[in-house]
Amino acid sequence: MVIILKSNPNQKQLDNLLSWLKSMNLGIHMSEGANTTLIGLIGDTSGVDMELINALDIVETVKRIQEPYKNANRKFHPDPTVVDVAGVKIGGGNFQMIAGPCSVESKEQICQVALSVKESGAALYRGGAFKPRTSPYAFQGMREEGIHLLLEAKKVSGLPIVTEVMDISHLPLFEDVDVIQVGARNMQNFELLKELGTLRKPILLKRGLSSTLQEFLMSAEYIMAGGNENVILCERGIRTFETATRNTLDLASIPLLKSMTHLPIIVDPSHATGIAKLVKPMALAAAACGADGLMIEVHNDPEHALCDGAQSLTPEAFKDVADAVRAILPYSFKGEQ
Amino acid sequence: MVIILKSNPNQKQLDNLLSWLKSMNLGIHMSEGANTTLIGLIGDTSGVDMELINALDIVETVKRIQEPYKNANRKFHPDPTVVDVAGVKIGGGNFQMIAGPCSVESKEQICQVALSVKESGAALYRGGAFKPRTSPYAFQGMREEGIHLLLEAKKVSGLPIVTEVMDISHLPLFEDVDVIQVGARNMQNFELLKELGTLRKPILLKRGLSSTLQEFLMSAEYIMAGGNENVILCERGIRTFETATRNTLDLASIPLLKSMTHLPIIVDPSHATGIAKLVKPMALAAAACGADGLMIEVHNDPEHALCDGAQSLTPEAFKDVADAVRAILPYSFKGEQ
Amino acid sequence: MVIILKSNPNQKQLDNLLSWLKSMNLGIHMSEGANTTLIGLIGDTSGVDMELINALDIVETVKRIQEPYKNANRKFHPDPTVVDVAGVKIGGGNFQMIAGPCSVESKEQICQVALSVKESGAALYRGGAFKPRTSPYAFQGMREEGIHLLLEAKKVSGLPIVTEVMDISHLPLFEDVDVIQVGARNMQNFELLKELGTLRKPILLKRGLSSTLQEFLMSAEYIMAGGNENVILCERGIRTFETATRNTLDLASIPLLKSMTHLPIIVDPSHATGIAKLVKPMALAAAACGADGLMIEVHNDPEHALCDGAQSLTPEAFKDVADAVRAILPYSFKGEQ
Amino acid sequence: MVIILKSNPNQKQLDNLLSWLKSMNLGIHMSEGANTTLIGLIGDTSGVDMELINALDIVETVKRIQEPYKNANRKFHPDPTVVDVAGVKIGGGNFQMIAGPCSVESKEQICQVALSVKESGAALYRGGAFKPRTSPYAFQGMREEGIHLLLEAKKVSGLPIVTEVMDISHLPLFEDVDVIQVGARNMQNFELLKELGTLRKPILLKRGLSSTLQEFLMSAEYIMAGGNENVILCERGIRTFETATRNTLDLASIPLLKSMTHLPIIVDPSHATGIAKLVKPMALAAAACGADGLMIEVHNDPEHALCDGAQSLTPEAFKDVADAVRAILPYSFKGEQ
Repeated sequence: MVIILKSNPNQKQLDNLLSWLKSMNLGIHMSEGANTTLIGLIGDTSGVDMELINALDIVETVKRIQEPYKNANRKFHPDPTVVDVAGVKIGGGNFQMIAGPCSVESKEQICQVALSVKESGAALYRGGAFKPRTSPYAFQGMREEGIHLLLEAKKVSGLPIVTEVMDISHLPLFEDVDVIQVGARNMQNFELLKELGTLRKPILLKRGLSSTLQEFLMSAEYIMAGGNENVILCERGIRTFETATRNTLDLASIPLLKSMTHLPIIVDPSHATGIAKLVKPMALAAAACGADGLMIEVHNDPEHALCDGAQSLTPEAFKDVADAVRAILPYSFKGEQ
Repeated sequence: MVIILKSNPNQKQLDNLLSWLKSMNLGIHMSEGANTTLIGLIGDTSGVDMELINALDIVETVKRIQEPYKNANRKFHPDPTVVDVAGVKIGGGNFQMIAGPCSVESKEQICQVALSVKESGAALYRGGAFKPRTSPYAFQGMREEGIHLLLEAKKVSGLPIVTEVMDISHLPLFEDVDVIQVGARNMQNFELLKELGTLRKPILLKRGLSSTLQEFLMSAEYIMAGGNENVILCERGIRTFETATRNTLDLASIPLLKSMTHLPIIVDPSHATGIAKLVKPMALAAAACGADGLMIEVHNDPEHALCDGAQSLTPEAFKDVADAVRAILPYSFKGEQ
Repeated sequence: MVIILKSNPNQKQLDNLLSWLKSMNLGIHMSEGANTTLIGLIGDTSGVDMELINALDIVETVKRIQEPYKNANRKFHPDPTVVDVAGVKIGGGNFQMIAGPCSVESKEQICQVALSVKESGAALYRGGAFKPRTSPYAFQGMREEGIHLLLEAKKVSGLPIVTEVMDISHLPLFEDVDVIQVGARNMQNFELLKELGTLRKPILLKRGLSSTLQEFLMSAEYIMAGGNENVILCERGIRTFETATRNTLDLASIPLLKSMTHLPIIVDPSHATGIAKLVKPMALAAAACGADGLMIEVHNDPEHALCDGAQSLTPEAFKDVADAVRAILPYSFKGEQ
Repeated sequence: MVIILKSNPNQKQLDNLLSWLKSMNLGIHMSEGANTTLIGLIGDTSGVDMELINALDIVETVKRIQEPYKNANRKFHPDPTVVDVAGVKIGGGNFQMIAGPCSVESKEQICQVALSVKESGAALYRGGAFKPRTSPYAFQGMREEGIHLLLEAKKVSGLPIVTEVMDISHLPLFEDVDVIQVGARNMQNFELLKELGTLRKPILLKRGLSSTLQEFLMSAEYIMAGGNENVILCERGIRTFETATRNTLDLASIPLLKSMTHLPIIVDPSHATGIAKLVKPMALAAAACGADGLMIEVHNDPEHALCDGAQSLTPEAFKDVADAVRAILPYSFKGEQ
């Protein structure tokens, strides 16, 4: 970390700053230029509150030279992490498709879709049991019963399952779940992240609606700092001024995150766009720029056909996407050599 | 709710939609125009998933005529809610200042600041015991011990206290806390909101970094749906492209929220701007446009003077702000007459 | 257009509204429901000021059923437009690469890069003569002299040239330019757009930093309304809260725009990200999701090597990108069938 | 400017960088620390392309110590600029209200509103003759005829007039206009700004929809660099994810801009919010936090009453706002002492 001081800093405040920095066991390297004085900090600065220093009267600016994330940092872990989910590998060249319905609705539905997406090539099965809904009056998911139905689908299909947790107190229900998902709205639910760090189960961490990439990695770091290195990142769109799509899918984050971290990164084109017809082109684009996998909503509702046109794909449409993705993969971006 | 159909909708899909709507006990009023058919829904549509309907192939667009929030809605509750915090009233013409340090650090600090801000006119005392921090390596607050010290400060000063909760499991520690704060990052931690709805204690709900006003009110609705009507809203800045301030303080939300809801709304100029010298002008602006109160960070650190210039004010600077705010209040916006 | 009125509208205001609508030669279809009255407007509503109507006291909401753009609208022109630039076709299945330096710097540079990118497969050559710069003290481009050098490069390489116009008064200099570019900052310079509408030369229109897709198409409509149908759209990133990349490349806009308009759409990954190493993955992603072409910055500076690592690629790196893009094209999204 | 190098920079690239910096007549001060090397640049760095340097392989980061704007910079011009518009002073403690209709519609309208707002205390009169409209099919203003009618209103009322220019070629029509307005969409129409720099007439420069404060000041700098120091800044809302208001009024920019520049800054609450009932509270808030003036839309349309409820105020509502603003002014923020 480098602190650039204003010209002619107040000596008393400077002394206070220096003694405070020393109290954190940091090496200090002063360098006085013509009209600028710089303080270089040597040692572990990950606990230093940059914003606080930046706000001091005598400080012009402060810059990290090292990133504030350690466990997630590619610099200290150049090889890509491969997360193993019950034998299914994600990352480091292993591309996987996760598919399934937004919500668990019934045993028949959840098992039928599972068999169908498995046949189309999905390696993991997703379904929502606990559903974060903007409105308290909207369907909140089948909750505990939903988890049981997902486990039925797992038994029937053999696919490992991914489902979202919303509160620490529900974790005992997730014992047989293969991947625990943290939703975008909980990306900075730090107490939950800490708790997930005590597990050894893979965690699928979704990027928050207004999270920078650095904040995203710091949330992964919360989990990893607890000892759980099995983190899969998921880009699912950010909130911008554009309302033509539900969110703005930030695909440049994929290659950029890959240069910052060794963790696998997948893309959720369904939630990112909210529009079924955009799922295929964005799935292809995600694969092309180097994502390690996709998470796609697939629904079947032959009786009501209510979801036609929504963000969910039919099992047939998913097959079409999966085939196209497999075809494009050999030509996709493989990283800087 | 009004659903506008595309021209020549598929009859089978239309029948499915109509029978689904009827199954929700909604009255249906069809109206066929020259090239548009409209479906008016009569009854309680708060549970209807607008996004789902909007995504149907046969639907052009769907518009709510009624807002999705009921308990928080000013239409059904024209008089402003006055929240009573241990005798201190907020809302309905009662303007209050909440002040105190970002974090509880020691007994001496927390009691000294309490006495000082009380003398300057603060009616409630705030301090952070559980601190949501982006980094797992940053100071996470004094936690349980911090709550105890806050209660000491309450005893010494007589000021009711406000402090943030981060997880349901910590709630037993908050029994003697007067106002429980929900931070911006937890605004859509729905399980936490539901739990707070079972209490009868006032809740201070901060707007999320990327929350629309409607989402903000829906989160208040989560608490109120549980029976707890003592909700105080807090605007604390939203995330935009502008980085000159930490967040962008959205003051137009104050009069707009007041037309949407009967709940009291306060402003936090410290977190919104992240710059101490902007606290005073933004406190004055907030008071001028009709806010029901302010929440301001005040810190004392005579030995280190480390926080000079940070977003926290010194006790002296707070006194200056408080005096200026009291002077401007009689000339502030009093609502539409 | 459908206008949904509030319940019990003021009759005098309603009469005023109706007579005003009639004065615009619009057919009016009233439809009174249980608690809502709707007004359907029949005829050409593209000149109706929706925002004004929306703001009326008696109006709950107003929705366009028809898009406000006509010439650019795919509904009225289902076949994709193929723009012909001196024999080079863009759109309707014709994918093209446009490459060249950010600024024209010297005759040697501009000719050398032209020959090099041509060999790698670029079909059009770009270079900046007039440069929009945030600072008045920064290099403003070689201007008139720059145009002459570009025309030299065209002669030498045979590649048609693309360059940006910044003001109507400079247009006479663009007579031999093949494609006139409108930069992001001028996307809503309406007087310039009108003037370009009087030409028959292809116009490359870049999306503004904070433009919605509809505003983007309305700017194309300005040019087309004047009779110039040769418009090429260019997605080049939008401004969001994320600062890790210079802008946020909104790739979902590619398939979405293709469903809205028949105009060709290309992507500029260089300006969108501002980071050279992201150009290749984002070029592949753009091709994968159905873009009609790419615009890529290529620079050579063997002596100073000053631009290594900047957003510009070296000629060698461009060749690598061009080869990879050609390889992925057969597997890319071809639109909804 | 301080350039922080990566550890172990490539020596050849470093030599290239240093010789390039020297070629710009900059003093260079190297300072090698434990694991960081810093290059301090001494002299006029306003022409140095920071982004280019930042993108070099060997550079970790680069920070300006001095702002890139000189003429607009408060550091070099501590006293506030007072702009004199035909005897009406704005800035340096002189608060003024600018009022008038969005568009000039007729002689009767424009003269009637002028007399009315003058009586309520407006010191300048605004009206749109050239109107930037998103749609080519919407009313584009009365243009030349509109300017003539504004000059009639000036004669009748004695109020100096403010009106927007959209293209350099229209400037001859603005000879008798007192203040030339640059709209938000033209804030980075650099050729127009340069031309306005050659005049000595006051320029009212509106902030762009997605402009940072620094970009805003750089656009003012374009005008000032040409010798025209009569620039009035206008905050009119920025584009964010929030759609409840048309734009998000960034009031914290007022005190922040005042610390950055000596130019007067006014606020346009009408365009910022797009909602008439928010004009009064936001006008009060703007006055409270230290703005030098307000620009407010006022319309009269007794026959059609079409604009009731739109963003325009009636003359009576404007009188109410003007009175309230005058009452609050003595209690507003007066800057840091």
